Amino acid sequence: MRTYIDCIPCFITQALRAAKAATNDEIVQRRVMNSVAEVIPDLPLEARPPEIAQRVYKIVHELTGNADPYREVKSQANETALSLYPRLKEIVVSSDDPLLVACKMAIAGNSIDLGPQVLHTDLDSIIDSALSVPLVCDDYQQFRAELANCTRLLYLGDNAGEIVFDKLLVEQLLQYNNHIDITFAVREAPIINDAIMDDALAVGLDEVATIVSNGSDAPATILPQCSPEMLEIFNSADLIIAKGQGNYESLSDEDANIVFLLKCKCHVVADLLDVGVGDAVLRKR
Amino acid sequence: MRTYIDCIPCFITQALRAAKAATNDEIVQRRVMNSVAEVIPDLPLEARPPEIAQRVYKIVHELTGNADPYREVKSQANETALSLYPRLKEIVVSSDDPLLVACKMAIAGNSIDLGPQVLHTDLDSIIDSALSVPLVCDDYQQFRAELANCTRLLYLGDNAGEIVFDKLLVEQLLQYNNHIDITFAVREAPIINDAIMDDALAVGLDEVATIVSNGSDAPATILPQCSPEMLEIFNSADLIIAKGQGNYESLSDEDANIVFLLKCKCHVVADLLDVGVGDAVLRKR
Repeated sequence: MRTYIDCIPCFITQALRAAKAATNDEIVQRRVMNSVAEVIPDLPLEARPPEIAQRVYKIVHELTGNADPYREVKSQANETALSLYPRLKEIVVSSDDPLLVACKMAIAGNSIDLGPQVLHTDLDSIIDSALSVPLVCDDYQQFRAELANCTRLLYLGDNAGEIVFDKLLVEQLLQYNNHIDITFAVREAPIINDAIMDDALAVGLDEVATIVSNGSDAPATILPQCSPEMLEIFNSADLIIAKGQGNYESLSDEDANIVFLLKCKCHVVADLLDVGVGDAVLRKR
Repeated sequence: MRTYIDCIPCFITQALRAAKAATNDEIVQRRVMNSVAEVIPDLPLEARPPEIAQRVYKIVHELTGNADPYREVKSQANETALSLYPRLKEIVVSSDDPLLVACKMAIAGNSIDLGPQVLHTDLDSIIDSALSVPLVCDDYQQFRAELANCTRLLYLGDNAGEIVFDKLLVEQLLQYNNHIDITFAVREAPIINDAIMDDALAVGLDEVATIVSNGSDAPATILPQCSPEMLEIFNSADLIIAKGQGNYESLSDEDANIVFLLKCKCHVVADLLDVGVGDAVLRKR
């Protein structure tokens, strides 16, 4: 998808939040706001929103000297989600349709996001919403049917903390079809609270999938920025699970066999998907 | 109060909303966003927030050619609120403390705002919240005591629609002390959805108070911008009622006998007042 002028206030809001997380120096924070404001007039609206977000966070990094403002927040999110893992697992395996409930949990886990909205730290309410909120854009039956014949699945991760919920879904994918070879992709370097290799290892995702870096530090999967290895995996996958709004924003126009799992976080994406903000989306491209 | 960098995303959001209300031309909307972004680096944070908002809305006016993007919205808000007036009045006069309930209603009416947040069009829920939400920063008893001895009261209005709720309070002020001479001030020219002379006349505020323009088109009461007539009224008033967050932002540092009535609309003002966003505030300066 392209960028809309409605995205501009969101970039500014994200810059402020990241600048405050990166430094307590108000003069430097102001400098970040000014620099981000200065690039607004040159922003190409034909770019994907995460490409512009990448530019914004690069400014935060350069002016504050802090490459990973949400480092502690991410670590804490992993730990908290891990502590809930046994309970999540029990809910999933004791349900009538563990694969469906694992999908719902994975989508609810996408609430853990510091990009377009503030972090949803109350994991209990995330679990409650996973179980009570119905999926919209519900292509679950088609997804389930394709999984039965899938051999190579690429799972594009999104945020730290959330990846514990993803691990739960990966386990159910393998439970449903133990012939699937699953690769889980993370970002190459810290950006917002997106999961990187360290996060995947911290939550033991390597026990159930092959972990790869996508080669890019965008908060998304921008194919022209991905490594050749990542592109080969992308192109040879039977099915791709893309988690989160950033992956949707970067891949919605790609001609590939993708199922998007996300919590819708803004009215721009809500309008494109014809859903409401906050809705749980499972949409086959 | 001064401006904080936290106000910057809000100015950008307001610019987008106003640009969209002012024109359907997306190129012009983008031009507004760019021009507002361009002034960010030069914004003096020592200025009061409504001074900067005034500059933002001036850009919207100049680039779109539309001096009053919310004209219809304001007119509709006046009409809807007027249609509720008999019911509001009945609730107030039949209560144990009509003056208190009228204060609560007037504060709840401050929800009708297109500045820091979107318009609250559901007047039923405004009335419900007026009756159910307690006042915080509750200086009501002191306010009531001062009213008993007041002869010249200046009431600084805020928004269209809201002024119907203000009329209700003005009536109760006179009911409580019929020796008070009340002057009601409106903005000189359209800005956001702030009430101007036409709005005051449309809802019959002139039946209960003397209406004056403050001489400025800021969404607030910026004394250096006010007319000599307005300043004389301001300086000779025993007591000043300042409605809304804009009037708070512009007058919180003035050495005058002011009671602020407002719905708190952002975390910056919430922190300064030590209240929560959405709280109903009656604060004596």
